[in-house]
Formats: sequence, C-alpha cells, structure tokens
Amino acid sequence: MKSSDNINPKLSLELYVYEENFFEKHHITDLSQLTPYLSATKKFWLNVVSLDNELLSGIADIFGIHALAIDDIVNSQQRPKLEEFENSLLLVAKMLYTKSDISRIQAEQVSFIIGKNYLISIQEEDFDLFDGVRTRLENPAGKMRKMGPDYLAYTLMDAIIDEYFLLLEKLYDKTEQLEDLIMADHHKSLLSTIYKHRKSMQEIKKVIWPTREILSAWKKSESIFLKKKTLPYVNNIYEHTVEIIENLEMQRESITTLVEIYMTNISLKQNEVMKTLTIIATIFIPLTFIAGVYGMNFEYMPELQWKYAYLSTWAIFIIATGGMVYYFKKKKWF
Amino acid sequence: MKSSDNINPKLSLELYVYEENFFEKHHITDLSQLTPYLSATKKFWLNVVSLDNELLSGIADIFGIHALAIDDIVNSQQRPKLEEFENSLLLVAKMLYTKSDISRIQAEQVSFIIGKNYLISIQEEDFDLFDGVRTRLENPAGKMRKMGPDYLAYTLMDAIIDEYFLLLEKLYDKTEQLEDLIMADHHKSLLSTIYKHRKSMQEIKKVIWPTREILSAWKKSESIFLKKKTLPYVNNIYEHTVEIIENLEMQRESITTLVEIYMTNISLKQNEVMKTLTIIATIFIPLTFIAGVYGMNFEYMPELQWKYAYLSTWAIFIIATGGMVYYFKKKKWF
Amino acid sequence: MKSSDNINPKLSLELYVYEENFFEKHHITDLSQLTPYLSATKKFWLNVVSLDNELLSGIADIFGIHALAIDDIVNSQQRPKLEEFENSLLLVAKMLYTKSDISRIQAEQVSFIIGKNYLISIQEEDFDLFDGVRTRLENPAGKMRKMGPDYLAYTLMDAIIDEYFLLLEKLYDKTEQLEDLIMADHHKSLLSTIYKHRKSMQEIKKVIWPTREILSAWKKSESIFLKKKTLPYVNNIYEHTVEIIENLEMQRESITTLVEIYMTNISLKQNEVMKTLTIIATIFIPLTFIAGVYGMNFEYMPELQWKYAYLSTWAIFIIATGGMVYYFKKKKWF
Amino acid sequence: MKSSDNINPKLSLELYVYEENFFEKHHITDLSQLTPYLSATKKFWLNVVSLDNELLSGIADIFGIHALAIDDIVNSQQRPKLEEFENSLLLVAKMLYTKSDISRIQAEQVSFIIGKNYLISIQEEDFDLFDGVRTRLENPAGKMRKMGPDYLAYTLMDAIIDEYFLLLEKLYDKTEQLEDLIMADHHKSLLSTIYKHRKSMQEIKKVIWPTREILSAWKKSESIFLKKKTLPYVNNIYEHTVEIIENLEMQRESITTLVEIYMTNISLKQNEVMKTLTIIATIFIPLTFIAGVYGMNFEYMPELQWKYAYLSTWAIFIIATGGMVYYFKKKKWF
Amino acid sequence: MKSSDNINPKLSLELYVYEENFFEKHHITDLSQLTPYLSATKKFWLNVVSLDNELLSGIADIFGIHALAIDDIVNSQQRPKLEEFENSLLLVAKMLYTKSDISRIQAEQVSFIIGKNYLISIQEEDFDLFDGVRTRLENPAGKMRKMGPDYLAYTLMDAIIDEYFLLLEKLYDKTEQLEDLIMADHHKSLLSTIYKHRKSMQEIKKVIWPTREILSAWKKSESIFLKKKTLPYVNNIYEHTVEIIENLEMQRESITTLVEIYMTNISLKQNEVMKTLTIIATIFIPLTFIAGVYGMNFEYMPELQWKYAYLSTWAIFIIATGGMVYYFKKKKWF
Repeated sequence: MKSSDNINPKLSLELYVYEENFFEKHHITDLSQLTPYLSATKKFWLNVVSLDNELLSGIADIFGIHALAIDDIVNSQQRPKLEEFENSLLLVAKMLYTKSDISRIQAEQVSFIIGKNYLISIQEEDFDLFDGVRTRLENPAGKMRKMGPDYLAYTLMDAIIDEYFLLLEKLYDKTEQLEDLIMADHHKSLLSTIYKHRKSMQEIKKVIWPTREILSAWKKSESIFLKKKTLPYVNNIYEHTVEIIENLEMQRESITTLVEIYMTNISLKQNEVMKTLTIIATIFIPLTFIAGVYGMNFEYMPELQWKYAYLSTWAIFIIATGGMVYYFKKKKWF
Repeated sequence: MKSSDNINPKLSLELYVYEENFFEKHHITDLSQLTPYLSATKKFWLNVVSLDNELLSGIADIFGIHALAIDDIVNSQQRPKLEEFENSLLLVAKMLYTKSDISRIQAEQVSFIIGKNYLISIQEEDFDLFDGVRTRLENPAGKMRKMGPDYLAYTLMDAIIDEYFLLLEKLYDKTEQLEDLIMADHHKSLLSTIYKHRKSMQEIKKVIWPTREILSAWKKSESIFLKKKTLPYVNNIYEHTVEIIENLEMQRESITTLVEIYMTNISLKQNEVMKTLTIIATIFIPLTFIAGVYGMNFEYMPELQWKYAYLSTWAIFIIATGGMVYYFKKKKWF
Repeated sequence: MKSSDNINPKLSLELYVYEENFFEKHHITDLSQLTPYLSATKKFWLNVVSLDNELLSGIADIFGIHALAIDDIVNSQQRPKLEEFENSLLLVAKMLYTKSDISRIQAEQVSFIIGKNYLISIQEEDFDLFDGVRTRLENPAGKMRKMGPDYLAYTLMDAIIDEYFLLLEKLYDKTEQLEDLIMADHHKSLLSTIYKHRKSMQEIKKVIWPTREILSAWKKSESIFLKKKTLPYVNNIYEHTVEIIENLEMQRESITTLVEIYMTNISLKQNEVMKTLTIIATIFIPLTFIAGVYGMNFEYMPELQWKYAYLSTWAIFIIATGGMVYYFKKKKWF
Repeated sequence: MKSSDNINPKLSLELYVYEENFFEKHHITDLSQLTPYLSATKKFWLNVVSLDNELLSGIADIFGIHALAIDDIVNSQQRPKLEEFENSLLLVAKMLYTKSDISRIQAEQVSFIIGKNYLISIQEEDFDLFDGVRTRLENPAGKMRKMGPDYLAYTLMDAIIDEYFLLLEKLYDKTEQLEDLIMADHHKSLLSTIYKHRKSMQEIKKVIWPTREILSAWKKSESIFLKKKTLPYVNNIYEHTVEIIENLEMQRESITTLVEIYMTNISLKQNEVMKTLTIIATIFIPLTFIAGVYGMNFEYMPELQWKYAYLSTWAIFIIATGGMVYYFKKKKWF
Repeated sequence: MKSSDNINPKLSLELYVYEENFFEKHHITDLSQLTPYLSATKKFWLNVVSLDNELLSGIADIFGIHALAIDDIVNSQQRPKLEEFENSLLLVAKMLYTKSDISRIQAEQVSFIIGKNYLISIQEEDFDLFDGVRTRLENPAGKMRKMGPDYLAYTLMDAIIDEYFLLLEKLYDKTEQLEDLIMADHHKSLLSTIYKHRKSMQEIKKVIWPTREILSAWKKSESIFLKKKTLPYVNNIYEHTVEIIENLEMQRESITTLVEIYMTNISLKQNEVMKTLTIIATIFIPLTFIAGVYGMNFEYMPELQWKYAYLSTWAIFIIATGGMVYYFKKKKWF
C-alpha cells in the first residue's frame, strides 16, 4: 500500500460515517485512517476537494479503484460519463454555474465513485452545493441514512441538476430580453403574428410528444394494472396523437414556406420601387442635363441664335424619352 | 395512518363506486371513508380537484402510493409521463385549451393513478371535460362498467386528446388566415404556384408514408389471416411505396433548389436595375453640375467671355462621359 | 343478431363467392343472406360501397368484427393503418386521385377486413378502380382463385398504389413545368449549371442507396445460395458503396456552401454599385444646388456683384468635395 | 415445359460452364439446350442480353424461377433490390454511365439470379463491362473457378461498382470546376477562408466518423484476439472520438452563425449606404428644384423684382432642410 | 511459401519481441526470420514501414492473413475500418496531421493486424508518433508487457487519436480568428449578443446531453452497486435532464426565428428608405427638368413672353406632383 506521508498536509478530507441510527463526521488527515471503514458494515461518504493526482492515487490504492477511473477524474476536461469497473462504479458529472453574466458559463467537474458501502465524491473547489445534502444526512428521520451509497450519489446529482434549472431560467430571461428588443420595432406586424403562431405550435408539440410516448409505453407495458383487453382502445388514441403530430409538422412546413414567400415578396416590392426610381431618373436626368447646357451663360453659343433651336431641343427631349421607354419595355421593366 | 382532521374542510372528493350492475356516487369529506373500498371487489374512481400536498400525501398513505408519484402530481410543471411503481401506475397528462385567442395556449395537468381496482384522477381545477365520461359510467348498458380502471383511464385520456383536436382546428384556422394574408398580394405569381405544388406533394406524402408502414407491418405480421405465400407480392407493392417516397423526396429537393434559383434571380435583376441607374446618374449628375456652374449669373465670370469656352465645355462633357464608360467597362458593369 | 330490416333499401352489396373451380356473383339485399357463407369452405369477397354506420355494424355483428374496426372504417379522416383483431385484420388505405388539376388532390378511404375465408372491402363511392380485379377473379385460369383472401386484398392494394404512380407522373409534369418557367430566364447561367450538377448527384444517390442496402442484405442473408466464404468480398464492395455515399454527401455540402458564397457575392457587388452611386450623387447634388442658387434671376442678389464671388463659389465646391471624400474615406467606402 | 420455338432467332445466349479444372463456352440458340446443365454438378453462368418477356419466362420455367422475379427483371425502372425466393435469389442492380457530359447520367439495369449451381445475368444491352470477369473465368489458376456462383455474382457487382467510382471522379471534376468559377472573383476574401476552413473540418470528420465506428465495433466484438481486459482502455479512446465529433459539430454550428452574421452585416452596411444617399438626395433635390424655378427666364415673374425675394428663398431653403433633418431624426436614420 | 529473396534490400522491418520479463529488438532483413516467432509463446510486434504489395503478401503468407486484408492495407484510400478474419483481425486507421497551415490536412493510413500473439503495424512513412509507445514497451515496470497485442494496438490507436486533438486545437484557433474578424465590425450589436447567447446554450447542451446519457445508463445498468430501489429517483432526475434539453431546443428555435425576423426587419427598413428616396426623386426630378427647360437661353422661346406662362408652369408643377402622389397612394407606398 502506498504511503500517505507525502500527502499535502493542508489537505483535510471530510468523512461521513452513517447508518440508519448512526452518524459521525471525521476529518481525515492521513489516508491510513480510511482503511478500517473499508470492510466495515457501516456506510460512509468521503468528500475530496482536490484533483491532486497523488492523493487520488493513494485513495485508489486503498479502495482498489481502476487507474483509468483516476485518470478520468483528474482530467477536468472529461465529458460526463458513467463507467463500470470491477470493484466500483465511476460517475463523472459537470456542475454548471455563472458568476454574473449568462454569457460566461463555467463548468466544474464533480466525480463520484460508488462502491459496495461507500461513496467517494471528488471536486476541484469547495462549493456550498452539497450543504443541503449534508444537512439531510445529519437528520436521523430522513430517508438518506436507510438507503445505500447510490442513493447518496443520486441526491448529489439531484443537487447538480437543480443548478442547471437556475441556469435555464437565466437563459430564458436573456431570450425574452432579445425577443423584446427585436419585436419592439414591429409588434403589430405580420411577422410577429407568425412568430406567436409558431410558438403556439411549439407549446402544443411540447405536450403532445411526450403524450405519444406515454401511450406508446402503455402499449408495450407489462404492468398488471394494464389489461390486454384495453390495448386496442389505447392504440386508437395513440394514433390520434400521431395524427396530431403529423398535422403540426405539415402546418409548420407550410408556415416556413409562407415566411419564405413573404420575404421574397419584400424583395419583389423593393425591386419594383427600384425600377420606378430608375426609370424616372434615367429618363429625366439626361434631359435635365441638356436643359442645363442651354441655360449656360457663355457669350458664344451659336445654337442660342438658331431659329428652330428650341423646337429641336424639344424634339431631342421627346426622342430620348421614347428611346428610353422602348429600352425599358424591351427589358420588361414595366 | 395519517389523521385527516386537518384536511381543508371545503374540500370534497367525488367517489364513484361501480361494477357491471352497480353504481354509486359518494362525496368524500374525510379520507378515512376511503379505506373500506381498498380491499373491496368493487371498482371505484376517485376524482380529486386539488393539488394540495397534504391531501394527496394522505391519499398516498392510504393506497400505498410511492412518495415520488405525489411529487410528480403536485409539481404542475411536469411533462407527460407514465411511470410504474410497485403498487400502482402513474400517468401524468396535460390538458391544453385556449380561452379566446389561439396565441395563448394554457396547460392544465391531469394525473391518473391506476391501481388494482381503482383509478384516482387528480386535476387542479374542475373542468367539464369529464362530464361525458361520468354520464357513460352511469349508464348500466355501457361498456365502461364491465372494464377495469385502466379502461376508465383510457376514456379520460381520450377526452383529453379530443380536446387537442379542437386546438388543432383553431391552429389550422390561423394558418389559413396567415396564408390568405400573405398570398393576397400575389395570388397569380409563380411563388403561389410553387406553394400549391408543394402542398400537393405534402398531401400525397401524408398518405403514402403510413401506407408504407402498413405494408411493412403486413410483411412482419404473424397473423394467421396473412399467408406466407402472399408475402413476395406484398413486398412488391411495398417497394412501390418506397419508390414513390424517394421520388417525392427528389422532387421536393428539386423544388427547393428552384425556389433558391428564383430568389437569386430576383437579386440578379435588382442588381441590373441598380447598375442602370448608377451608370446614368454617375455620368449625368457631374455633367449637369458643370452646366449649372456656367448657368450662374455672377458678373465676374471670365470663362463666359472666352471664345472657345462653349466648345471646351462640350469637350469636357465628352471626355468625362468617355472616362466613366471606360471605368464601368473595366468593372464589367455592362 | 341485429335485425337488418332497416337497412337502406337502395343498398346492394356485391358478393363474389369463389374457389379454384368455382365463381359466383350475388347481389345481397339483406344481411341475413351472408350468414351461410361464414362457415362455408368457399372463399368470398364482399364489396360494400357505403360508410353507413348501421349497415357496417350489422356486418360487424355477423362476422364478429371488433367495434373499433368499424369506428375506424366510418371515420373517413383515418390515416392508413393495419390493425390486428382477434377474428380479423383491418387494413385502412387511401385512394388518391385528381379530377383535373394536380393542385387539387382528393383522397378516398378504402378499408379491408381480412378474415379466415373472406375479404370485406368498404369504400365510400364506387370507383372503377377494382374492375380489373373483378375481371381477373372471373378468369378461371388466373392465380387469384387459388390464393386466399389476403392475396385478393393485395391485388386491390396493388390497384390503389398503381393509381399513386399516375399522380406522381402528374406531379413530375408540374415540376418540370416550373423548372422550365424558372430556368427560362437564365438557361446559360452558373446557377443552372449548379442545378444540373445537383440533379446528377441525386440520380447517382438514387441508385447507390438501394445498392448499399442490397449489399447489406446480402451480408445478413441466410440464404443457402449465398456462401459464408464470399462474405468478406461482399463486405468489401459494400464499403465501396458507403464510401461513394460519403463522398457524394461531402460534395453536396460543398456545393451548398458554394451557392451561399455565390449569393453573398451578388450582395457584395450590389453593395459596391450602391456605394458608387451614393458617392457620386452625394458629392454632386449639393454642388448642383449651389450652382442653381446663383443661376436664379432675382434682381436683388448682392453676391452676384461681388468681385470674388465666382472664385469663392469654386472654393466652396472644392472644400465641400474634399469634405465628402474625407467622410467616405473614414467610412471606408473606397 | 414451354416450347422455345418462338424465341427470337437472332438471339444467342452465352453459357459458361466451369469447374475448378474445367471451362467451356457455349452459344445457346434453343432453351432446351439448357436443361442438361440443371441437375449437373458443374457450375454455369448464363448471360442474357435481352429483356424479352417471353424468352425470360421460358428461362424461368426451366429453372423454376418465381414469376415476380421475371416481372422485376423486365421492368427496367426497378430500383436495386435483393429478394429471396424458394429456388433462387434475385439481385437487381443498376449500372450507371455517361456517354459524354456528366449532366446526363444513364442507368442500365443488370439483374442476377443466383441458384444452387448457376448464375443467370440479364442485361438490356451488351456492355464490355463484364469482359474482365470473363477473362478471369477463363484463367484456370484464378480463384473464380473454385468459388460458387455467388462469388461470380460478387465479381460482376464489383465491376458495376467500380464504374460508379469513375462517375464519382467526373462529378468531382465538375464540382472543382464550379468551385474555381465561383471562387475566382474573391479568392482572398473572408468567405473563401471560411469555405476552406469548413472543408478542413469535413476532411477530419470523414476520418473521425469511421474511426469512432471501428472503436465501437471493437467494444462489441467477440473476436478471440480482443481481450476483455483491454476494453476499458478502448472505451477511453472511443470517448475521445465522441468528444472530437461533438467539438467539430459545435464549431460547425458556430461558423454557420458567423456566416449568417457576416451576411447580415453586408445588409446592414448596404442599408447605411442607402440612408446616406437618401438623406442627401431628399434634402437637396427639392431645393435644387426651387433654385431652378427662379432660374427660369419668363418675362412675367413677379417674385424676381421683390426686394426680399432672395432672402426669403434662403429662408425657405433653411426651413426645408431643417424640416427634413427633423423628419430623419424622428425616423432614427442618423 | 513465398521466397523472400526479391524483397527490397533497403527494407528493414523492426521486430519487438516481449514478455513480462523479456524484451528484444530485432532488425528483420529477410522474412524467413519471422517464422520461428509464429508458434512461440512470446508476444511480438512487427512494424512495417512500406506499402509494398510483394513484401506485404510475403508477410501475409507467413501469418496466414486473408488476401483481402492486404488489399485493404495497400489501398491507401481506404476509410477506417475493423474487419474480422479467421486467423486475425484487421484494423485500418488514419493519422491526420498538418505540416503548416490548417487548411491543408494530410492523412496517412496506418493498419494493424492483430493475431494471437502478435501485432503487425503497417504505415507508409516513418513517423515519430510511435516513439512514446516504444519507450513504454522497453520499460519493464510498465503495464504494456503484461497485456496482449490488442493492448499494444490500443496504445498505438491512442497515440493516433491524441494527434487528432492537436488538429482540433488548430481548428479552434482558426475558428476564433474568423470570429474575431467578423465580430470586429459590430462587437456591440444585437447580432453579437445573439451569437454569444447561442454559444452559452451550446455549452450547456454539451454538458447536459452526456449527463442524460449517463442517467439513462444508470437506469439500464445491472451493476451490483446500483440498487433497484434507487431507480425511481434516478428516473426522476433523468426526466429533468430531458426537460432541460427540450427547453433548450425550444429556445434555440425561438432564437432562430428571432434572427429571421431581425433580418426581415432590415429588409423592410431598407425598403422604406428606398421608397422615401424614390418618392422624393420621382416627384422633383421631372419638375426640375421643366424648370431647367425654361431656364434655357434660346432667343426664340415663345412661351417666355406669354403673360400667364409662369402661372401655368406652377399649375403644371402642382398637377404633376398631385398625379405622382395619387399614383404612390394607389401603390400603397405611403
């Protein structure tokens, strides 16, 4: 067995020994203190706040934990996983939290080793997340003392997942904030109506999907409370849910196409506006230029004295306009 | 057993006791009144209109229902689920309804606990949704009395799902309304033709998909009415349906690409319009400026007296135009 | 048994009784006429052209068909399905057809009940779709008389699915028509090249996908004609098909990105055109205004007499232009 | 047995009879010549270049092939499939080829019937695709003579699939050509960088996906060469591949969003350019009009003589400008 | 057995013979040197740096490796795969690396043949990738010598996959670089906020997905450390994770729609800007032209002397404007 002398002296592990009618809390300063509990009949929870490889290897030696499990625990970039080893079971979870802004989500790895009569939890920093669990463990009336170390692992996982919901709430707030910002400009427009309509469909889908699942589960269930005779009826409403889902999907697709058409419509209208502008500008800008030329005050402009100059100019105006109109007609602009 | 003294006195539970030839309705005001029915041979339905934790825990104690089931019932944010416990089966469903506008869909949780000879239904508020079921239960000729509590649960679920169809109809109305609004502008356009074409394909797909499924089911069925000898033939038409689906998918993809090309086409045309405008404006606006300059009435404008001023101005006009045309040619604008 | 007195007198059911060497056609006007055939050894086909609930319930009583099956048949909004009951098998199919335009697809529900020695087909209106099947049944040399009622059901399904192909052809025509319309404008453009390229890939995929499937089926097949020794070789070409599919997918993704880039490119070019126009217009329009001001013919315009007015105006022109150019440079417009 | 007198006289079937140490090639002109080989111990390959229904039915009669198999072979619109019948196995494949341009892919159906000691291959036109296989069959040292008819079918399928790779290469060439065309315009732009980045990710994914699959296969493999003890380690690297795939997906999504932002950015900039133009034009065009009015040379224009006309005009200019600026401010255009 | 005389003389294979307490390294120059190790009890690793078909066929003959395995090894375009043969197991992997730029990813095929007591690794070029494994093999205290050849294959695969992570890091750098480039322009804009929000959701999803998986694994696990009694609780938090995922998906969809609305909004605003410009320009450009006409200095312009010419011109101005306004109103432009 590995000597635990060289363990960081500042380190102190929390050990909770418990049974239905028993509860003790110890501060472990030397790993050899753990050995007596191993074969004991009492259950215990060892909480380690450190990713120190040496320390964890020491613990692994005592409990016969596979080396790969320790590797997974120490590597804090691990994705959540559950792995079964011969003598124990490894569960790597991630705690998510934000310190201030939702755009900075931080992850903390929390690992659990579940053995026959023990749970070892390993985290990098001490969070107050598990305080509630500690309190419940101290309470002799609670369920936790009666149940095994896997139930303890469950309550700790539960605490972690409850934290996710807090995050989800913050995300919701941000989404709503974005929604307000974007919808502010055109809260009465067609697009916002479509948006709300889509949301209604989402909400129905959110209910109808799991409903289909439970009816499917009913069909397959072998529970004695569900008789075979009822199955054709259940199958009937199961198919109703399938039908509703199909219809929702069809409507969703229709609406997507409608939005596409709406957007193309905007482009088409913009094109029409552009054409109007271009036609008017293209016809009159050159004409205005010609008028401008003969508005110049040069002393020597021979055309000014010509008798039919003015008439000719109007002829030019009319011919130029006619040419332009013909050109635009050919281009099918109007 | 928990004392039921502190149960909200305003509360009254409806209890329906029934058998093929028996029907009774009771108002339960004290939970202890329930005990006699537990071991009885008669079936009963207990309808609870309350999410009061204490009340439900009291009921759970009497029927031996798992504490987690009560948690799920009380938490009205639960998603629909079916969970099997040792002594009973929990089914959490959601009723959906709108009071006026389809954009405000409201959800009401309805939970069912199915036991050996009982059904407990729990809802938050009293809806008239179950009235039809009550009437059918009172009818001695109906099927419901002969069947077990799971059949009763089925009929209640059926009532809930029928409500979904009402919602679906409202959604349809809204979708059609949106369709009318958007298509109004260009009901003869190419896009509306494409939209209708897509809808036709959707409708065919809606029929052909389940047809494929039933032929697949036929192939796998072990029903005595379906002989093995017919299988190769069934397989043959099964493959026809597969082929039709593949072809529909290919056409759908083609049409998506066509719409894309159509939209790009609009952009390209808009670009062309823009170029025409820009070329005309860019050439003539500076020229018009120059003409404007020599149309000014200042007394001291030396150029006005120059002999070749007018000619030079025309030279400038022509050179500027040539430069512009060269520039646009180089940019490949025309 | 239900009295059939109140059956619609106009109703006449077609009954075909057949065996390898026997064929008879009856017109049933009273349901009691059906009873003798039930336990007979001969096979028969009953064709019902009605969704009348009462009539169908009467038939159901005679044949012992589950009430839910009748519900499914009568509800003409049913999606296609296959359901096994104790005494029979229900198959609900949909016939699709168009009267004129492909954009109006109509669906007709056709249901089949397959029993030990009978087939009941139920449709709402009489179509000539099944005429071919009747002719084949009358032909003593045909296969149909030898086979059971499930084979008869297959031939009827076959007739329905053949109808789908007619629809598919009409859809194709419409798709091609749309293609012609959209591609007309730019049949030599890059986009049409991409479109054709994509179609080529689709066509290859259409062949390679089922090829992969059949090689996969070969690998798993337990046919005595396929020896185990050949398997590694088959696996080899199976992997070739997988590779081809992967490559096609990669190319498809590349092309999607290319189209995206192409479209962004158009936007970028349009932006450049816009900028040119804006720069020219923004510089010269204000200058032209100033020139216009001093082209006014008011009698009392003091600036006109100033000696350096003309020079100052040019100074203003140059300064304004410089300012504009500086502003556009700062905005990085050129 | 069907008389083969009416077989097309021009038709000649190729028959290859072979065994490990035996090879003979016959030209069959009458189907009755085939019968002796049926029960023989030698293996043979019959190559039919015709989709003539009568001929194929004749062959089917001799070999006891199911009529549906012949239907599938004759219908050249069949999708590839593998179907097992009692006496034989049908494999329908498609040969793909292009005569010149990749945009015109042509498909040729090739069907195989595999029996106990024979292979029948049916194609519509004679291609030189199978020449290589014939040569290998003539070679006494080759493996092909030792193996059964299914191995022969494999080699023919191999030849067909090799042809697909040629097509794939042509598609690649076309894709690259398109890439060059589109990227030509902006080979240094951000978009082309993104395009290359995406391609890198695709290439990695192409390797990492099957790597994950093989590690998954290792985990599930029951090969004696893979010991159970190594499994946790393999699982470890399996999870690494999963992690890499997840990260690639996350990056891919990020880049899609980035491109979206980039394109929106272009739109926003275009909007800004448009606004600048519109503000300048909207302010100065009306002013220029007013200046133009008072530049007209009518003899009777009373305003021209007014003393404060010029000043008033400037007042109008300033007020109009102010009004415009106020309007644009209110519209939040700048 | 094949003679190995004609093997490339420059070729030298590395052979590592090892056992728990034994390690030897040989340079093989003749394939016949390999035979003694085949039936030996010691384990060995043969590293081949060559894709020479002849050499590999020689090795295959000695070890009884299937010819298809050699085909797969030599064909360096193979996708990664695992294939089981009678006497051995083939694993084809790909090493990925970049020499400089991430946009040029290169792939090197590395194949492994795992036999009873040997591992043969085949690569095309010698990389220093396996140096670490060699060092660990030389170390007598290491685990590698105790384990079989499959463990050795695992460590080599591990080295290859570690290399992927390096690539991934480079990809990340490039993605971040692109992000910086694109976001630079509008780091405070709404779009960048949405982008960050989406990233937060991605990060949560990255944790919550595997968490759901491990809870699902817990539910199905048959480990003795996980008691049945805890299952309902685990199921409870499992459903929480499902709910979180559903909510994230719903939010993601909402945000996608929001971005769509935002982009449509930009188009709509651009349209409005365009309309303003077009209205102003279309009204005033023709008017300015008319004013310009009467600003011309021709000597013979009869209108100039008319008494009501000026008034009439104003009348024309007003009528033209009115007509335009009416036209735009009819077009619903404002």
